[in-house]
Amino acid sequence: MFKLEIEGPVARVVIDRGEKRNAIPIACWSALERTVNDAAASDARLIVITSADPGSFCAGADLSELPALIDDVKKRHIFRGAMSSALARIRAVGKPTLALVEGGCFGAGVSLAMACDMRVAGPNSSYAITPARFGISYPQPDLARLAELVGPGQAARLLYGAETIDATEAHRIGLVELICHQAQIGADMIERIAGNAPYSLCALKATLAGRFGVDKRFDDAFASADFAEGWQAFRSGRKPSFGG
Amino acid sequence: MFKLEIEGPVARVVIDRGEKRNAIPIACWSALERTVNDAAASDARLIVITSADPGSFCAGADLSELPALIDDVKKRHIFRGAMSSALARIRAVGKPTLALVEGGCFGAGVSLAMACDMRVAGPNSSYAITPARFGISYPQPDLARLAELVGPGQAARLLYGAETIDATEAHRIGLVELICHQAQIGADMIERIAGNAPYSLCALKATLAGRFGVDKRFDDAFASADFAEGWQAFRSGRKPSFGG
Amino acid sequence: MFKLEIEGPVARVVIDRGEKRNAIPIACWSALERTVNDAAASDARLIVITSADPGSFCAGADLSELPALIDDVKKRHIFRGAMSSALARIRAVGKPTLALVEGGCFGAGVSLAMACDMRVAGPNSSYAITPARFGISYPQPDLARLAELVGPGQAARLLYGAETIDATEAHRIGLVELICHQAQIGADMIERIAGNAPYSLCALKATLAGRFGVDKRFDDAFASADFAEGWQAFRSGRKPSFGG
Repeated sequence: MFKLEIEGPVARVVIDRGEKRNAIPIACWSALERTVNDAAASDARLIVITSADPGSFCAGADLSELPALIDDVKKRHIFRGAMSSALARIRAVGKPTLALVEGGCFGAGVSLAMACDMRVAGPNSSYAITPARFGISYPQPDLARLAELVGPGQAARLLYGAETIDATEAHRIGLVELICHQAQIGADMIERIAGNAPYSLCALKATLAGRFGVDKRFDDAFASADFAEGWQAFRSGRKPSFGG
Repeated sequence: MFKLEIEGPVARVVIDRGEKRNAIPIACWSALERTVNDAAASDARLIVITSADPGSFCAGADLSELPALIDDVKKRHIFRGAMSSALARIRAVGKPTLALVEGGCFGAGVSLAMACDMRVAGPNSSYAITPARFGISYPQPDLARLAELVGPGQAARLLYGAETIDATEAHRIGLVELICHQAQIGADMIERIAGNAPYSLCALKATLAGRFGVDKRFDDAFASADFAEGWQAFRSGRKPSFGG
Repeated sequence: MFKLEIEGPVARVVIDRGEKRNAIPIACWSALERTVNDAAASDARLIVITSADPGSFCAGADLSELPALIDDVKKRHIFRGAMSSALARIRAVGKPTLALVEGGCFGAGVSLAMACDMRVAGPNSSYAITPARFGISYPQPDLARLAELVGPGQAARLLYGAETIDATEAHRIGLVELICHQAQIGADMIERIAGNAPYSLCALKATLAGRFGVDKRFDDAFASADFAEGWQAFRSGRKPSFGG
């Protein structure tokens, strides 16, 4: 249910199960993980997670599988582990990642969008985190990320009320970083990132994450092919063309 | 000066000292703590802290008592300890807590609102943290919470300038999560939370707070009576009715 | 290139290299550090960092010096160390600090503004963090501060896209705390802070930073000359006049 489309510097992981509003069955989280692995291993500079169906980004976990967990303790572990592993893999990618959200984004679908570095929202997208409607809970790393993005107050509001918010409110509280017009959704942002220096993109991401060795990354940049090109382009007043 | 009103799933802690704009004397913080304890021990799913007087949520500490602290070192400890203990008790409640703020919310009144998980603001509410006008300071846990909600930059602005901001600006910077029309202030939000699953509300709050054992809470949810009801209601397309 | 202007309770560190859009050469960061030291040692209650040229707050590091770093490993350390040291000095000042930003604020100029407690933006100010256009990286403490102010999602967006945002968007995402009209830019905010109690300003800053001994600072305030004045003024209904 996940397709990988690589076009120049942009790798797209496309969720394609529109008939079920892109709900992700337990067995499919590992396929998401593999697709993200392939995107990370490619030459692409930027990974975009998006949907083949503009009406639905991702409805979250596939609810129809959950009743099987009532009597099967082991399957609960498998469910939690499969989601956690795939989302942790996305967070660990060394390149920029961007969720392009059109349509409904619910439950674990919000976790999926939050696992990316940035979120670009279509004007008709909508968001809800709904475990409180069903008597279930939500994984801890995803709630930590939610609080990081929208603050603990808005996190509480979204979780306890389980209400659906629209793109404008998601943008206002920081759940998404940009709202774009339907026609060119995110295209400008993606083009801008894809034209920037690969050395910088990875070094900045490592630095923002507080990873080990970022001072060396800072210093070494000046010896990189990317800086040589960046500086030449700047002096000549032309657009830089960074190597693949 | 604190009344407890329990109606179905909602417990209201009502501040009732309108003649002094709900300023809280040193000796009364322990009464607040006891009232919150009673609310937490009740069957209510949600605790709402609010005022009997729509013109004033809480003017903070009772300033008329502060000159007695000039020469009494021990009383300063008592003052700080009484506030800290009551506010820490509110933060430790396992159920969702919501401050419904109408009218003035000043000084330790802001701490009181911030000690709740969420804040719903009336359109005429106003906010200021004013120790810098008086030559005094503010408790550390409350400033940590302030920075968590509005960021360190807005925290600095509110503290150093000691200015009064209105509900719109409080909403913009994240000091309150929602603004509601006077007539139905917070009613929708409260009703929504009160209709959600008690198992979820407590599990989500524990998870958001990063408390111990949240993976087990996640897994155990599937065996809960709340999930049984949540799932049945979902399948039948009806509103769930969670047990008390 | 840095001038110190002290007027009553306000010390202004003025960047004055308009012909180069206030870009800071490697050798000048130590002059910034010394100027901030002098401001911190003065009787001023508030330090304002601003520009002599309303068209440019600070264009960041002086790019013309960077090619020399390609073959000089030691100079890269010197570059990073000089910036880090000056910015760390600003962050360590015990009094409130405020960046008054008019015109362009780019690269390390954003770090300079972020090193202050608060940022007041002119309506024509603009902001960009652009290492990804040049193949270089950005210091870790500055990115940690960026994420603290705007959240990790907006930080990623600004870094990976390297786009220029205007004052309205900077205000919306929390990169600046206030937008002011050109004529009186920040004057109200500065006057308000400068009229508040010095004891409070330093105690609140130490408390917000989680520094050691803040409980004692809280308690001792009641014995301070500032509280004596603050309380007398409050009782008399007059404006307090705190000692220098």
